[in-house]
Amino acid sequence: MILFNSDYIEGAHPSILDALVRTNFEQTSGYGEDKFCEEAREIIREHCCDKEIGVEFLVGGTQTNVTVIDAFLRSYQGVISADSGHINVHETGAPEATGHKIIALPTTDGRLTLQQIKECYDSHWSDPAHEHTIQPGMVYLSFPAENGLIYSKAELTDISQFCRDNKLYLFVDGARMGYGLCAGNSDLTLADLAHLCDVFYIGGTKVGALFGEAVVFSDKEMQRSFRYAIKQHGGMLAKGRLLGIQFAELLRGGSECIYFKAAKHANELAKHIRDTFEEQGVPLWINSTTNMQFPILTKEEQMFLARKYKFEVWGKYDNERNVVRFCTSWATRPEAVEELCNDIIQMKTK
Amino acid sequence: MILFNSDYIEGAHPSILDALVRTNFEQTSGYGEDKFCEEAREIIREHCCDKEIGVEFLVGGTQTNVTVIDAFLRSYQGVISADSGHINVHETGAPEATGHKIIALPTTDGRLTLQQIKECYDSHWSDPAHEHTIQPGMVYLSFPAENGLIYSKAELTDISQFCRDNKLYLFVDGARMGYGLCAGNSDLTLADLAHLCDVFYIGGTKVGALFGEAVVFSDKEMQRSFRYAIKQHGGMLAKGRLLGIQFAELLRGGSECIYFKAAKHANELAKHIRDTFEEQGVPLWINSTTNMQFPILTKEEQMFLARKYKFEVWGKYDNERNVVRFCTSWATRPEAVEELCNDIIQMKTK
Amino acid sequence: MILFNSDYIEGAHPSILDALVRTNFEQTSGYGEDKFCEEAREIIREHCCDKEIGVEFLVGGTQTNVTVIDAFLRSYQGVISADSGHINVHETGAPEATGHKIIALPTTDGRLTLQQIKECYDSHWSDPAHEHTIQPGMVYLSFPAENGLIYSKAELTDISQFCRDNKLYLFVDGARMGYGLCAGNSDLTLADLAHLCDVFYIGGTKVGALFGEAVVFSDKEMQRSFRYAIKQHGGMLAKGRLLGIQFAELLRGGSECIYFKAAKHANELAKHIRDTFEEQGVPLWINSTTNMQFPILTKEEQMFLARKYKFEVWGKYDNERNVVRFCTSWATRPEAVEELCNDIIQMKTK
Amino acid sequence: MILFNSDYIEGAHPSILDALVRTNFEQTSGYGEDKFCEEAREIIREHCCDKEIGVEFLVGGTQTNVTVIDAFLRSYQGVISADSGHINVHETGAPEATGHKIIALPTTDGRLTLQQIKECYDSHWSDPAHEHTIQPGMVYLSFPAENGLIYSKAELTDISQFCRDNKLYLFVDGARMGYGLCAGNSDLTLADLAHLCDVFYIGGTKVGALFGEAVVFSDKEMQRSFRYAIKQHGGMLAKGRLLGIQFAELLRGGSECIYFKAAKHANELAKHIRDTFEEQGVPLWINSTTNMQFPILTKEEQMFLARKYKFEVWGKYDNERNVVRFCTSWATRPEAVEELCNDIIQMKTK
Repeated sequence: MILFNSDYIEGAHPSILDALVRTNFEQTSGYGEDKFCEEAREIIREHCCDKEIGVEFLVGGTQTNVTVIDAFLRSYQGVISADSGHINVHETGAPEATGHKIIALPTTDGRLTLQQIKECYDSHWSDPAHEHTIQPGMVYLSFPAENGLIYSKAELTDISQFCRDNKLYLFVDGARMGYGLCAGNSDLTLADLAHLCDVFYIGGTKVGALFGEAVVFSDKEMQRSFRYAIKQHGGMLAKGRLLGIQFAELLRGGSECIYFKAAKHANELAKHIRDTFEEQGVPLWINSTTNMQFPILTKEEQMFLARKYKFEVWGKYDNERNVVRFCTSWATRPEAVEELCNDIIQMKTK
Repeated sequence: MILFNSDYIEGAHPSILDALVRTNFEQTSGYGEDKFCEEAREIIREHCCDKEIGVEFLVGGTQTNVTVIDAFLRSYQGVISADSGHINVHETGAPEATGHKIIALPTTDGRLTLQQIKECYDSHWSDPAHEHTIQPGMVYLSFPAENGLIYSKAELTDISQFCRDNKLYLFVDGARMGYGLCAGNSDLTLADLAHLCDVFYIGGTKVGALFGEAVVFSDKEMQRSFRYAIKQHGGMLAKGRLLGIQFAELLRGGSECIYFKAAKHANELAKHIRDTFEEQGVPLWINSTTNMQFPILTKEEQMFLARKYKFEVWGKYDNERNVVRFCTSWATRPEAVEELCNDIIQMKTK
Repeated sequence: MILFNSDYIEGAHPSILDALVRTNFEQTSGYGEDKFCEEAREIIREHCCDKEIGVEFLVGGTQTNVTVIDAFLRSYQGVISADSGHINVHETGAPEATGHKIIALPTTDGRLTLQQIKECYDSHWSDPAHEHTIQPGMVYLSFPAENGLIYSKAELTDISQFCRDNKLYLFVDGARMGYGLCAGNSDLTLADLAHLCDVFYIGGTKVGALFGEAVVFSDKEMQRSFRYAIKQHGGMLAKGRLLGIQFAELLRGGSECIYFKAAKHANELAKHIRDTFEEQGVPLWINSTTNMQFPILTKEEQMFLARKYKFEVWGKYDNERNVVRFCTSWATRPEAVEELCNDIIQMKTK
Repeated sequence: MILFNSDYIEGAHPSILDALVRTNFEQTSGYGEDKFCEEAREIIREHCCDKEIGVEFLVGGTQTNVTVIDAFLRSYQGVISADSGHINVHETGAPEATGHKIIALPTTDGRLTLQQIKECYDSHWSDPAHEHTIQPGMVYLSFPAENGLIYSKAELTDISQFCRDNKLYLFVDGARMGYGLCAGNSDLTLADLAHLCDVFYIGGTKVGALFGEAVVFSDKEMQRSFRYAIKQHGGMLAKGRLLGIQFAELLRGGSECIYFKAAKHANELAKHIRDTFEEQGVPLWINSTTNMQFPILTKEEQMFLARKYKFEVWGKYDNERNVVRFCTSWATRPEAVEELCNDIIQMKTK
């Protein structure tokens, strides 16, 4: 069985394991206050072209989302999110468990638009009984979104401007950040994100690390309070060095760093899968340029491929077809993709 | 500088890194539903001599404490704890942040007694206005306690019996479980703990793992709900295999497993440090038989040792002396301890 | 200005004020443990034809909703509600602030159907990764719904059956219970509700009381725990007698009690308003048989009536028309309704 | 049976019931935005000699405490309180249920001292691992304290100064405010409190109202956010007018208002009880000058008085004696006190 069902089915990029072995017996302070974390912070500041940003490291995505939301918002403030957003769908009510309502907006393509953020905001404040409804306090969006689509620099700039004008925090979930930044049609950089967001994170778990998410704050002062929030939310790793070692390893080397190379590798393989589906007349649900591709398969096609490959059933398309998801990652072997593509061709030529 | 300030200042036991490297490219499911986790669960069931227990893996101690407390208790139920308990002192209010009051009881030696648990319980229920005060719902204790002391099997059995008779959950925090079980004066085993507690955990972070805590439930049914709680509290590791691989590696081999060997190693080195202090006439604050030792140092002595060693100032003893803590671990080198002991002797013979 | 904008714009039914004056200097225990509360509980048990139900009294609706939800559910369990449900729209995220996600389902007429409850439940449990999404734990519905529509006995029985078969709590918000039970087309009684629900409440605030909601539990045992939850949620009134006095006054007298008379009075006046609108060719948004009526007004019509009457703009109907809400209550004077009806006629005959 | 067990065993001052009857059929807006609330706010601003303060009304004390704490503090910030403080002892963990740890300090007489607040604050910030412990964010004290003792203007000024210098909110629980301000040895006024506190409340429930607490903010801006918090915590009364009517009635008339007269009445009767106990050789536990008195009774004395009077057993004094509490209120009849005093004399002359 070859697994394409997600981008966290292997361990870590070998360089990371090497680094862990290499540093194993060095003695350091705990909780992210060691030299490895400092080095990783410095590297991230360079990527962001900003010496004033704050950086903290957490273990996983749900933990990071909840900690950020709870650290930034008052309990009567809610988070504007696409209704398909990870915080709304796949976190077992974690943000609500810390007291924050999600203001879930329906989308046409999984991405929030400035227009709907604006309408949501205006509708709250124009209601004379506004204190009877949750106050919008933050805009949450994922880059790339759950379906692999990305925001352009122009789109993000407009949303950022609206947020700043109206005192809404802008928080970008970058669990798959690398795949988004390295998409062929992306015009965003880490420096742009640091400039446009109040807070965002660079996801490690799904892009080469064993685990880890690096949270970047535009305002360094916020970092101090945030450490309390991390600890309180159970996100402060005793051996914090493990996060510093991994992010230093992934991001060292500027535009040539492992993180970007791994992401490009995955995107290219995904494009090959996508092209093959298209060439064989299998329609795609959405125009993703990142590491997730969503072909629409008939039940026979689905069953044919499921014999040998594991992939996720994303949803029902119509009575006879499902949307399924194929994921590549930093670890996907080109030969595995080749084999899949051959099977796609065979599937259609039977 | 040689660090004795805690037991999480190095990476992991080399066998763990080997296992991570060895398994790195195997593809598995996420979230603790892989074969490595299954293997680790099986090994733990054997240690506990009970096929019916449930086992789940989390990343860190605070996270585990909070998830267990919140999963088991209603919001109007509080946790009885020593006032020096980790949940009361060093978790930034994490249990309270999920809605649970800690009923903190003062202790003479950091350990709860049956008598005070009983008094606390009775005082609640004998108050006619009991619903105006928090209802005791759980007893939390640490094995070993924050000061390294342990409970005997007789003590734990009595507390367990009282808890069962009165529908109080018994939860044992085992962040340093190994050091406690391997203490010379300990008569408890994992099987005893599984038999006496509703829930406890086997701490990995401080006993040889990179990170990780294995939570054991006496009732397997509870495990099903607990997975929701883990996810909601941000504790469900995407690459859950990392926890399975580590605990299998640590606990494989019954009484000869790495986990116990590493704990004994640390306890023996700690005893050596302790004996040296005592032989040199430095009094010890408390009679610890585990990996933490608490000499009472004059300020001159403290300063003398601080030039070369890092250790923790635990608190003020009197106007001229402090209690300090020296910690050993699975990773402590005998030569480092030898060097320290020589310096202790030199300190007193100056 | 004559106010039709809600059903809580006056004080209380005069009999209630009389009773408060009459009992003012009697000395009683606090917190709902006085003889007046006992009497009210007894009267409610008679209405419900069930001596085994538990009854507790709270001050307001949001408080009651939140306390019930938090007392019954675990934090990883959510509440299935119509997306127009009060808990989802007009409570400033109060249920989420206590840690519970609302699973908001879109409706065609503001009422949940068995079919959609079933689909929601099945979709959770058929997802292999179900612990990554919130677990349905309770069905919340309002009787009458926010738009004045009611459920039939058959509908509620089916939903109740499904909930019992699948361990979902059934909770009915009865903030306007009286108006629903006394609607011309209603076939439900308090005894039916006590039989079909796990918990529901009889709203006082909007049906003749100064304030107060009487919560009824099908299981008396739950009452004991619930008192902790009330206290913890700040809902335990020191002078609890005020609630007992009011509910005894409202509900004494069986089917001839003030509560039902007041509700019928309001429904009849609402029907008169509705008939007048219809006779004058003004369409109604929804077929409400309770004390809230929703005519669709052109902007000119709205402005014409707004000069003399206060009513609520419910929403936009189309580019030229709004849905507005007229509310009657136990306190509405027939002359005020007469005047309104004459003005409606005048409005259309201008 | 004559009840002296608390100050909320009767209804309300007759003027309040008169006012409710008088205004019953006036139509007003809900939620505290009516003319009665505006009038009460204005009266309170005059008492406080400050036109810039914000005022909001809630129903009860626990609700008010929790709403204030949660509205002002971040979740990693705790509340410094006497360990005998109401929030720590008699609120069923309500502050913790909204996520806030109480930093409970032991006291000699139920009152916090500047010294211990300072030590608590310093100990947090001098700990290098401060983010592992809860951050002090607010000082909570009760005026009068749970045992009836008051703070002097000098004491409160010093505490206030320290709080302002160190960005700690100062919150004064005034559930029995009237009795404190009217104590013979008090040198504080509402204007002082408004000047020294960030937020405090004027308790109505225990001083003549049916229910209600008026929260005063030194900063009017905070009022806007606070309304969200009130609603979210279930404290926003639909018929908010009931609170406005009551507080206007109680506080109208400056220093001659019903509120102060009622408090003086209670304090004088309490002094009479106290003097009688003392004259008869019964020692008092504490030197209270307010409406609560704490004689130390032998078991025989306790039994003797308990035949005819209800009072609260406060705690054990020694093996043979208990501390008990006698409460007077605005409603206590002088004849009842006379009768009690005669019985005290008889008890000792038997």
